[in-house]
Amino acid sequence: MNVDRILPTDEAHDLLDLATELADRELAPRAAGFEERAEFPREVLRTLGRAGLLGLPYAEEHGGAAQPYEVYLQVLEILASRWLAVAEAVSVHTLSCYPVAQFGSDEQRKLLPDMIGGELLGAYCLSEPQGGSDAAALTTRAVRDGDAYVVTGTKAWITHARVADFYNIFCRTGGPGPKGVSCLLADRATPGIHPQAAERTMGLHSSPVAQIAFDDARVPAERLIGGEGAGFTIAMSALDSGRLGIAACAVGLAQAALDYAVGYARERRQFGRAIIDFQGLGFNLADHATQISAARALMLAAARLRDAGRPYSIEAAKAKLFATDVAMRVTTDAVQVLGGAGYVADHPVERYMREAKVLQIVEGTNQIQRLVISRALAKG
Amino acid sequence: MNVDRILPTDEAHDLLDLATELADRELAPRAAGFEERAEFPREVLRTLGRAGLLGLPYAEEHGGAAQPYEVYLQVLEILASRWLAVAEAVSVHTLSCYPVAQFGSDEQRKLLPDMIGGELLGAYCLSEPQGGSDAAALTTRAVRDGDAYVVTGTKAWITHARVADFYNIFCRTGGPGPKGVSCLLADRATPGIHPQAAERTMGLHSSPVAQIAFDDARVPAERLIGGEGAGFTIAMSALDSGRLGIAACAVGLAQAALDYAVGYARERRQFGRAIIDFQGLGFNLADHATQISAARALMLAAARLRDAGRPYSIEAAKAKLFATDVAMRVTTDAVQVLGGAGYVADHPVERYMREAKVLQIVEGTNQIQRLVISRALAKG
Amino acid sequence: MNVDRILPTDEAHDLLDLATELADRELAPRAAGFEERAEFPREVLRTLGRAGLLGLPYAEEHGGAAQPYEVYLQVLEILASRWLAVAEAVSVHTLSCYPVAQFGSDEQRKLLPDMIGGELLGAYCLSEPQGGSDAAALTTRAVRDGDAYVVTGTKAWITHARVADFYNIFCRTGGPGPKGVSCLLADRATPGIHPQAAERTMGLHSSPVAQIAFDDARVPAERLIGGEGAGFTIAMSALDSGRLGIAACAVGLAQAALDYAVGYARERRQFGRAIIDFQGLGFNLADHATQISAARALMLAAARLRDAGRPYSIEAAKAKLFATDVAMRVTTDAVQVLGGAGYVADHPVERYMREAKVLQIVEGTNQIQRLVISRALAKG
Amino acid sequence: MNVDRILPTDEAHDLLDLATELADRELAPRAAGFEERAEFPREVLRTLGRAGLLGLPYAEEHGGAAQPYEVYLQVLEILASRWLAVAEAVSVHTLSCYPVAQFGSDEQRKLLPDMIGGELLGAYCLSEPQGGSDAAALTTRAVRDGDAYVVTGTKAWITHARVADFYNIFCRTGGPGPKGVSCLLADRATPGIHPQAAERTMGLHSSPVAQIAFDDARVPAERLIGGEGAGFTIAMSALDSGRLGIAACAVGLAQAALDYAVGYARERRQFGRAIIDFQGLGFNLADHATQISAARALMLAAARLRDAGRPYSIEAAKAKLFATDVAMRVTTDAVQVLGGAGYVADHPVERYMREAKVLQIVEGTNQIQRLVISRALAKG
Repeated sequence: MNVDRILPTDEAHDLLDLATELADRELAPRAAGFEERAEFPREVLRTLGRAGLLGLPYAEEHGGAAQPYEVYLQVLEILASRWLAVAEAVSVHTLSCYPVAQFGSDEQRKLLPDMIGGELLGAYCLSEPQGGSDAAALTTRAVRDGDAYVVTGTKAWITHARVADFYNIFCRTGGPGPKGVSCLLADRATPGIHPQAAERTMGLHSSPVAQIAFDDARVPAERLIGGEGAGFTIAMSALDSGRLGIAACAVGLAQAALDYAVGYARERRQFGRAIIDFQGLGFNLADHATQISAARALMLAAARLRDAGRPYSIEAAKAKLFATDVAMRVTTDAVQVLGGAGYVADHPVERYMREAKVLQIVEGTNQIQRLVISRALAKG
Repeated sequence: MNVDRILPTDEAHDLLDLATELADRELAPRAAGFEERAEFPREVLRTLGRAGLLGLPYAEEHGGAAQPYEVYLQVLEILASRWLAVAEAVSVHTLSCYPVAQFGSDEQRKLLPDMIGGELLGAYCLSEPQGGSDAAALTTRAVRDGDAYVVTGTKAWITHARVADFYNIFCRTGGPGPKGVSCLLADRATPGIHPQAAERTMGLHSSPVAQIAFDDARVPAERLIGGEGAGFTIAMSALDSGRLGIAACAVGLAQAALDYAVGYARERRQFGRAIIDFQGLGFNLADHATQISAARALMLAAARLRDAGRPYSIEAAKAKLFATDVAMRVTTDAVQVLGGAGYVADHPVERYMREAKVLQIVEGTNQIQRLVISRALAKG
Repeated sequence: MNVDRILPTDEAHDLLDLATELADRELAPRAAGFEERAEFPREVLRTLGRAGLLGLPYAEEHGGAAQPYEVYLQVLEILASRWLAVAEAVSVHTLSCYPVAQFGSDEQRKLLPDMIGGELLGAYCLSEPQGGSDAAALTTRAVRDGDAYVVTGTKAWITHARVADFYNIFCRTGGPGPKGVSCLLADRATPGIHPQAAERTMGLHSSPVAQIAFDDARVPAERLIGGEGAGFTIAMSALDSGRLGIAACAVGLAQAALDYAVGYARERRQFGRAIIDFQGLGFNLADHATQISAARALMLAAARLRDAGRPYSIEAAKAKLFATDVAMRVTTDAVQVLGGAGYVADHPVERYMREAKVLQIVEGTNQIQRLVISRALAKG
Repeated sequence: MNVDRILPTDEAHDLLDLATELADRELAPRAAGFEERAEFPREVLRTLGRAGLLGLPYAEEHGGAAQPYEVYLQVLEILASRWLAVAEAVSVHTLSCYPVAQFGSDEQRKLLPDMIGGELLGAYCLSEPQGGSDAAALTTRAVRDGDAYVVTGTKAWITHARVADFYNIFCRTGGPGPKGVSCLLADRATPGIHPQAAERTMGLHSSPVAQIAFDDARVPAERLIGGEGAGFTIAMSALDSGRLGIAACAVGLAQAALDYAVGYARERRQFGRAIIDFQGLGFNLADHATQISAARALMLAAARLRDAGRPYSIEAAKAKLFATDVAMRVTTDAVQVLGGAGYVADHPVERYMREAKVLQIVEGTNQIQRLVISRALAKG
């Protein structure tokens, strides 16, 4: 489906054209094979980095494109419509650049060009096995020892755990609660950082998550970002952006599923007609097209608030909740449109459905989003 | 709820402030009483006209405000959040000005200032008792007789049937099918135009619909808009705008219902806590807040396409479908939030629920919207 | 729609035939008119009582028919499919007989034949203005004074408040909490019992609810049912039966709405075909038919547990929750099937929709049902 | 969750106890491993056959248990709650015995004891690659040649394609349309029967489907069941039973998912409480428990109609539609209850979700069920 987009600049048009071209050429042909082999597409990410798509929201002086979030998210959406794992990798990587870009020292920022350029891939180490959604309660410890912090603990559900070149580690340098949390930037080669075996997930096989064990890992003190105790602030300020990224991934995935189902339903004939001409099917597809348009519009509305410097936290939560629920429904029904054919790997829709599920869970489960929104309503 | 809106101009901000002020002062205090007495608020509409709110999208030379649809719809939304019947009257009236404004001769356009100023209220006579959604099949006839057309037939579901000062009559001047349809602009005083008793509707009592019988009604030939056979084109080009108007009404109504429910749930205590603090209720309200934000964003996205001169028909159908379904759900659940109190007229939510239903039906039932969207998908 | 029912006895078949005949003859022709005039059909209830339909579950020695709940509920369902207000009146009246029938003394039970025979209509006075769903916290007081209890307080949402011949009054004779609650049976003529003006409800106009003010009302001490402090036990043991009654009402109402919509959709033609032949509509009706069958089956499964003497409280809550949510959806969509015609009082579906809403609220809101069920899940 | 069942006989109680014991002992411990290895549990089916669970509805003279469908389906449900693939295999196998049991000659029926006893496993070859849901249009041909039929064509989506001992082949012996269809019973060893590679399905890996190519396969003429042209009648009369079987599988799968989610939510603590005590989660689980109870009740109501010899086709379609839609929702949300843990294979819920999808597709997609039901409504 051709989506008619109103973009803020001609440059944005060019960027979306570039993203579409790269997505068609580099992502689409590889997705099925890499997913089946559970192979991480490191080179594809490098290609995107070289093309300038890995640091769109960041300042040009650091190698970014200084694009509004409104534009960045539509690039993500386009990537996700061809290969979710890559879009999600871009979203996570972009998030991983955020602490340094926003809170880093000038010295630390010298890493940014390589990060944004795709030479250094990032992982964002916040969640813990028991912590779930309660970030202020994290237990990974970092103890100052001379010119380094010694990190001990375990992080869980970490995208790029096994392939990242650097890690943002949120850890406790002080007492309990949010004020005791700090953020360290560690190199992959740091002794004592042990990525574990990849989780056996239902989908997203080519970009697996894994636990990382930190076993007296020494991170240089100069790699502390924003000072001791700044970690929770950093994590919270990145949170909403991360949610918008997942919303964009969900919109792209849902659009891909709808497009595939529509294409199939135009071709497939039963009882003498293309099955899309049966209202029972056509109305279902119409509802999905409607929900996808609504999800996209909602995500962009939240992004424009962010771009305008206004509070957008609640609207980001709504966008994440709504878009991922839409993706789950649309992908599940896309399998149904194909019938038996939809249930087998000859067509991508069964993969889309397996992938959609994770989007309802990451960056705060959709229950957490509802909690965030309902508390805002209660407070008025 | 305070909605944070990004508007295109400072003028638009002023307009929305004005609309809010008028809605609070002129609409909100009257709604319950007028609805209970089934009294049409003619003076309120005149007030809105004098304030410049009855012709927002039209050219300034005709008394309009030359506002983009994006802005006009948010004014409608604000009015609807205080009194749906008035917002719907504004939407219908604005639609009734459209044939003259867009297709009228210079002579005909001389009527516009009084129409837009609120002195002359319009009705849009398209639907027929048997026709339902099949506009090309309308049967009301107009036969040329000297310097007039003699109109015979019956129109149905006509808003303002009994209170309008002028009627847009879509009628058949030629053979069957769309090419035989013309549009006449008739004055209220025209002999042979007989509005019937108001329909006994479930809601919107202060702006009732009725049939109109045309019994050899003579309309001057100079009141033919756009030439013989232009009627279907006029009707079709107004259709999408009308759908956006209903979407805006739905968003406003849903927001009003949510705001009322949230306000109640903050005050009402059970088992020792404000009931909004129970997740069972809070999550439900969060879902509604999310859906309303999505509906608003979708409506505005469609409006911006219209304002940019791009095709927007499908997006308007999506906005109408989505926003009115949201309004039905939100208002039904708003009654539930109040429990028994919600079921009685002491609170407005039972009225909101009765009103929401009509929005799923008018300007093309939501089945018709699904048909429009699914056909676009089938065509590709 | 002809529902194929497997009934336990031939007698049950006869009873359902009788109920159908009476419903067709006595209820169906009167419903629209009485509802419009907000007139209570006292004579209709007398007729049902004389036919033996007002005490189906009670012992034959007290004038009942000793029918299993499985059969009684299907009679209720049939009545509700012709006129909800009457079915709800039968359900409430049957509930009002329950305290005496189950917990009454031999002397008190002498009233049962007239109650069950329809000469004495009952009201069940449990809810209070502030109490909502928290029955153990009721505040209406009864103080022993010689050979009578003096009752003071206010009850709310009382069906038959203004037309009942006797009242079950749940009131506090002791300290706080469930153990301080008792149940008194008061005659209508008792001085100090003041039914208030009927609530202005969205529907069920011919069987309105109202508050009742008790102003030093003296109820003879011999009318205490089951001893002081027995009230909460009585109320709780009646609760589940009441929920099944509402479930039966919901199934009947939903079936009526579906049948009407199907009948209309078979007759109404657009684009050259009966509209039921369009899948967009037909599939929607199929979903509703499915949900109604599921609701009926669930209600009967719960009733059979009750009839078998097994715990059925959770299944009754499920049946109430599911059936009333189905009724809300089906009636709302039935209006949609008729389009504009559905929104006016010429057809009964707009009334069905207004009536369905109350079923989600009474006998414990559907939120309370979810609470009951989720607690059972949590307890295991 | 302990389901309180009202069963028709003590024997039925014993059967369900036996099924539960076998399911716990033979199915539950093997499911995860076999599914991961995509290994078909041939021995488990033999065990079930020896225990008498493979021919429950068939006459005792043929080795069956002469059980009503009401009982058989609850056995299926219990098996499905431990391992869907086995329950589905039992359902398909039972279906494969149906043509011989119902329409076979005495000679042919001599095979039944070994079929029902689990020594001979059956496949039901009806669907074709292009045929989809249009059975009357099947194209596999069987041409009489001496004392045999020579079969040519391809069947698709055949459960047990690669492991069956016998095949029911629905094929065309006459002209186009339903009257030209016959049913042959072929041994596995028949030359010219070539099962193809297993389909790469999203789930049900241990009971895969595959195409079967028939390449001049000679089936003895004495293996024609019910005469030439009887095939369509056989297929149609088996159809509704097959749908009930899938409904039972869906109820069992959904129950397993709910039970697992509830168990997890009781143990898992966040913010200091078991997460099941948060209403946002608890209400969701309550809705699922309700829908599962409704699905079970609906399935049993349809089965009782079948057992009573009444028409049950429409109710079977409703049960299949409703139960499988419930299973899809419940399993998808069960993953959500576990959050990230639900997305990995350490817990069974991600498998349940992948398995649920196929149930919406087999034995007539849920679109076909809606078509069946809506046509019945249209016919009245």
